[in-house]
Amino acid sequence: MNFSLCSVPAGWKFAGGVAGIKESGSADLMVAVSDRPASAAGVFTRNLVVGAPVTVGRGRVPAGAVRGVVINSGNANTGTGAKGLEDARAMTRTLAGEIGCDEGDVLVCSTGIIGHMLPVEKILAAIPGVYESRAETPAAVRDAAAAMMTTDTFPKVASREIKIGDGTVRVLGLAKGAAMIAPDMATMLGVVVTDAVLSPETADVILKTAVDDSFNLISVDGHTSTSDTVFLLANGASGVDGEGSAALASAVAEVCGELAEMIVRDAEGAEHLIELHVAGAADRDGAVTIAKAVANSALVKTAVTGNDPNWGRIVSAAGYAGMPFEPTAVSLSVEGVSVYERGTPVGFDEEAVSAAMRDGDRVRIELTVGDGPGRVRFLTSDLTAEYVRLNSEYTT
Amino acid sequence: MNFSLCSVPAGWKFAGGVAGIKESGSADLMVAVSDRPASAAGVFTRNLVVGAPVTVGRGRVPAGAVRGVVINSGNANTGTGAKGLEDARAMTRTLAGEIGCDEGDVLVCSTGIIGHMLPVEKILAAIPGVYESRAETPAAVRDAAAAMMTTDTFPKVASREIKIGDGTVRVLGLAKGAAMIAPDMATMLGVVVTDAVLSPETADVILKTAVDDSFNLISVDGHTSTSDTVFLLANGASGVDGEGSAALASAVAEVCGELAEMIVRDAEGAEHLIELHVAGAADRDGAVTIAKAVANSALVKTAVTGNDPNWGRIVSAAGYAGMPFEPTAVSLSVEGVSVYERGTPVGFDEEAVSAAMRDGDRVRIELTVGDGPGRVRFLTSDLTAEYVRLNSEYTT
Repeated sequence: MNFSLCSVPAGWKFAGGVAGIKESGSADLMVAVSDRPASAAGVFTRNLVVGAPVTVGRGRVPAGAVRGVVINSGNANTGTGAKGLEDARAMTRTLAGEIGCDEGDVLVCSTGIIGHMLPVEKILAAIPGVYESRAETPAAVRDAAAAMMTTDTFPKVASREIKIGDGTVRVLGLAKGAAMIAPDMATMLGVVVTDAVLSPETADVILKTAVDDSFNLISVDGHTSTSDTVFLLANGASGVDGEGSAALASAVAEVCGELAEMIVRDAEGAEHLIELHVAGAADRDGAVTIAKAVANSALVKTAVTGNDPNWGRIVSAAGYAGMPFEPTAVSLSVEGVSVYERGTPVGFDEEAVSAAMRDGDRVRIELTVGDGPGRVRFLTSDLTAEYVRLNSEYTT
Repeated sequence: MNFSLCSVPAGWKFAGGVAGIKESGSADLMVAVSDRPASAAGVFTRNLVVGAPVTVGRGRVPAGAVRGVVINSGNANTGTGAKGLEDARAMTRTLAGEIGCDEGDVLVCSTGIIGHMLPVEKILAAIPGVYESRAETPAAVRDAAAAMMTTDTFPKVASREIKIGDGTVRVLGLAKGAAMIAPDMATMLGVVVTDAVLSPETADVILKTAVDDSFNLISVDGHTSTSDTVFLLANGASGVDGEGSAALASAVAEVCGELAEMIVRDAEGAEHLIELHVAGAADRDGAVTIAKAVANSALVKTAVTGNDPNWGRIVSAAGYAGMPFEPTAVSLSVEGVSVYERGTPVGFDEEAVSAAMRDGDRVRIELTVGDGPGRVRFLTSDLTAEYVRLNSEYTT
């Protein structure tokens, strides 16, 4: 991670610390705090079963006066009933007490194991100290991102600094996630902050658009989690109005896109990042549906693990996606080499393509299913024995 | 396999042999032949992309005068265009020549790697010898089933002998499949023969019902293949009328159910058979949709691999299935032990449940999602590092 990229928006401070939730003793508690009220928007998991923090968060955004976010890792506070809800609220109440704001102006997320009561006393006891250590430095941002991690192997931060008219605005995102990742937000948490001036309504539109083109176009294992949350918080400390700024919307989308790619790159046990392009579908939704079927196929993933340009597994996964297309209109290239054209396999240098898959930064798969305008770029990871080991040994 | 169970229907003979398609030199060609015309029905993959034999088969059933089936393993004859279609027809033409019937009265299946032209000359040259060796013995049935195998570790045969009035009727099924298995028929082939008298129309109804309750309720990896086919062939050699016999329909369903369970038990790399019961859904389709989401979750599968009664992964997989239910109405038991009741985890002896998962013949998961009448029993397998190894090393 190149933290020199990190441009911290004005008025925002971050901290990460140890509450003692994780047996490992690693950092497991972070706060992000604004020195003034911020417009806030949120996007949440579409799973029917949700963690307590999701229930709390849904009731608090969009909003115009949010002052901070508190996130713990190590325990997802999911399946914890009424006590879990009270624990989530207590976390916000404690941070609000430190900040000197209403409980309702603090947001909360939790990630980690499911179905165990939060060790809430430890968390509440740790919040003041972590809050006290807050800073606007890249190191503090890094500490905060690290405290969100579960099975992640590196903290995930992305940032942009843009001009709007004569003013400068900063956008900074922190995320976590390495598995239970699927479209519609799966065990991933993201907090994107900016010092632009934005209404809650505009923040909401910008965030939903950005998430739809980033976090909702990645999958590690197709498992939509119960805790997924992304917040966008705009505190206006730059004094620069971001309403109607395409550049700001792009910056938020780019930050989300970078974070999403980091999550796939950090996918549990993964050896390959797979960049899948589906084109020629009837519409974008059709392309997304086909991309998901291909991306979630264990057979496609394991073929990539083996550096095998196995067009049969890719084309047949597209074929069961449930979106109609004409099989004779299907073409496929892997690593830029055409392997299947208009329904028929073509001769190609399998050794060379396999070597490219093995050696490259990512495996590029381009699937065309017809002549329609629907297209999408979708990111996923391969499936390795290490993924299985991680997920069969990580117990309740 | 207990082949003493095998009751061969009258008028049917089987053989398996070596055509030389597989580099290993293992058996890769089988025939099943009736001494008289048989009513025939077929069920095929719903993948948009299908192998040439599926295209040929769809045009030949239901029918009233089928004399035989020829199946090769080692090469699926899929993605092979017009030449593949001609190769599939040539296989039927060659067997028809031996039998002395019309080409259209022979059915064909192929399974194995996708996208390579069939070594059709080898196959056509081998058909007469394999046909010549046909017999009505259990050993011949076993040889035929073995010649259908790809990554299977054992041949799959099931049979029933039933009384209809004063007469006796036999039902015998042969199947293959160990991966690319998902509802709606995925790289699995099945041939069920009987000596009952049946019209093609009744055979069609009996087969579709049986497949819907067996092969369509199993999943190994969620990958619906391009070649899946199950045939039911009734040659009437017993002289016993099976029209309207519930016993015969049950026998066919039981044979299909046994074969389907064998396929899941032989799932590539699997260490656990998972028997998943979903109840309380609005209707059967809803139960099936939820069961598929749970069964295809890599996180659920790897939890079972680790003997972990991880209710969080199971309940959350149900939650993203796309079927509405009330989270507080969800209850779950694993190995008969209640672990989650009406939306809340309950205390249980994790060590004891884990030991039961490790030691038992199968892992039994019972998920209730409400008070509706929709229920289903669904079989799947766990996901192991060995599955990944098999599927990353088995190349095009």
